Amino acid sequence: MVTTELRRDPITGRSVVIDLSPLHPNDFDDGVASGFSRSSEVTEVEAACAFCEGREGEAGPELLAWREGSHTNTPGWSVRVVANRRPMLRIEGGLDRRIDGVFETRDGLGAHEVVIETPVHDQPLQNLPVDRLWRVLWAWRTRLQDLKQDARFATAIVFKNHGRAAGARMDHAHSQIAAYPIVPAALDEKVRGAAAHLGHTGHCIFCDMTEQGLRDGRRTVSDTLPVIAITPFASRVPFETWLMPGEHAARFDEASDATLEAMSVVLKDVMARVDWALGRPAYNLVLHTAPFSGDADLAFHWHLEVIPRVTRWSGLEWGTGIPRNPVSPEEAARVLRGVKPVGPDL
Amino acid sequence: MVTTELRRDPITGRSVVIDLSPLHPNDFDDGVASGFSRSSEVTEVEAACAFCEGREGEAGPELLAWREGSHTNTPGWSVRVVANRRPMLRIEGGLDRRIDGVFETRDGLGAHEVVIETPVHDQPLQNLPVDRLWRVLWAWRTRLQDLKQDARFATAIVFKNHGRAAGARMDHAHSQIAAYPIVPAALDEKVRGAAAHLGHTGHCIFCDMTEQGLRDGRRTVSDTLPVIAITPFASRVPFETWLMPGEHAARFDEASDATLEAMSVVLKDVMARVDWALGRPAYNLVLHTAPFSGDADLAFHWHLEVIPRVTRWSGLEWGTGIPRNPVSPEEAARVLRGVKPVGPDL
Repeated sequence: MVTTELRRDPITGRSVVIDLSPLHPNDFDDGVASGFSRSSEVTEVEAACAFCEGREGEAGPELLAWREGSHTNTPGWSVRVVANRRPMLRIEGGLDRRIDGVFETRDGLGAHEVVIETPVHDQPLQNLPVDRLWRVLWAWRTRLQDLKQDARFATAIVFKNHGRAAGARMDHAHSQIAAYPIVPAALDEKVRGAAAHLGHTGHCIFCDMTEQGLRDGRRTVSDTLPVIAITPFASRVPFETWLMPGEHAARFDEASDATLEAMSVVLKDVMARVDWALGRPAYNLVLHTAPFSGDADLAFHWHLEVIPRVTRWSGLEWGTGIPRNPVSPEEAARVLRGVKPVGPDL
Repeated sequence: MVTTELRRDPITGRSVVIDLSPLHPNDFDDGVASGFSRSSEVTEVEAACAFCEGREGEAGPELLAWREGSHTNTPGWSVRVVANRRPMLRIEGGLDRRIDGVFETRDGLGAHEVVIETPVHDQPLQNLPVDRLWRVLWAWRTRLQDLKQDARFATAIVFKNHGRAAGARMDHAHSQIAAYPIVPAALDEKVRGAAAHLGHTGHCIFCDMTEQGLRDGRRTVSDTLPVIAITPFASRVPFETWLMPGEHAARFDEASDATLEAMSVVLKDVMARVDWALGRPAYNLVLHTAPFSGDADLAFHWHLEVIPRVTRWSGLEWGTGIPRNPVSPEEAARVLRGVKPVGPDL
């Protein structure tokens, strides 16, 4: 039984998820020799991968799968969504806040799902053929549509960790979907900024930014509609790249099949370029789509962040919140545009 | 010539420092095999450590040093402060913002200094005797007092990276001081939160938090005045620990010699406990002190964050800004209190 709670920082108002269950060996990085964790009750690390085809029972009952004729919870799938076995948030719980003086806590209410992107153990997402990549995006969209029905959830965020340096604890390609009773800070500050820009100008800031950026062209990686790829003006890490619809669209859960198809093509192309430029780096993906309420639909514009993890967050970033990025987005886009990725699976 | 600029994210308003100079081999993590960096103009990594005693010329002219009889820029020091040789911010530059549509840039104006904490190469900060640790804090205080005189700077932040996993690129123990023309986001959100609490209650939130926390006691590591150590209620990482004066004090640059002495004792003690609990982990230190203007002096309370780096920031933290902390601060404080660090240098 995993128990977590959402705590509010009394100074900044930011939230953290505190896990109250016993420490798991995967919780700390490889190589951390902890007197504390040694003394804790730990379980054995599993020898075999629970995400591989044929081990469906261990990964858990499926919430969704792409199947062509096979039976639920058996082999014969290409994408499979299950509940996270060590969920950070649980669907059991209430919305009440417990206040004790300056300290505020609530249940770790939410959903935490895993999208197993391929039945094959050693197959990175970006190596999938475009039609298989499409099914991963289809799974994201379908789950978002379902999670939106739960009135307790304010929003959901899709993310992916590829490689140890990006926080991945499993090698088998997977992404994760987390639904929250609040709009998490990283999305909330975008929503607020976008709403302010809409208020001042009547425009979507993402559309304005993209239009000005494409005109200039120096941060453009791919400008073929309907899905474009750019390196953002204020990129936080080297080769940060955003994929988004060229026309205004607030929600990924409303994206058409054709948009997902364009997205699959651009994502595969961008990842091949990033893999070349940075030597197959660890990376994160983050999908930001408008909160479920719909209030931000005019202001917000869905986008997928590709975040290569080739630099380490240091005390500088912790202490200031101002990242130092050693590669300008103009330079990154120039390099990415210059690559001509070729290969049997492109 | 290193050239950087501060860019404002058009959506969130957050800043990043973009480095426009050629890539340096230290800019990427060890093990990143980059087609991009290979094709860049890179300099050789130095074989010998420029921070070691006897190589004062390579580290650069000293801005400050603790010396007893020796000459400036020669051996015979215990702490030495120099300008960063690859500064993220430079003291040459103006405050003007350059606005181009939705994009806003300004010079990478500021100061970026290095505090070499010991003349000995392989001596971590926490292994220094208390009186030597005191001199490091003295150097921080003295430099903050000086940087405050430059009317272009809004604030300065001290930070330290220990170990590769914490972003350190040099093994020789050092901390860094960065002065900014703006109040960086991570400090700004604390200042704003503290000002709001002061407005509502007439109290300092840090004092209220500490008073309530010490009464409860479950997150107390050390409650001996004048400097206490606690694990914060909304700890972001396992064993995050804050050191701060028990009585209200906004600015580290005004701390008395006696406060620095107490701070040295508590810091050494806390680090010995953390080293035991987590097996000498990589860690960051961050010192937050009130901005130079003085406007936040009633609301803000200086504190030193100890941030062990035993977990990896994943797409979850990037995408949500809500960290998942697998160890509750109550558990961390219980473990830290239980350790009885002993050793010849304590």
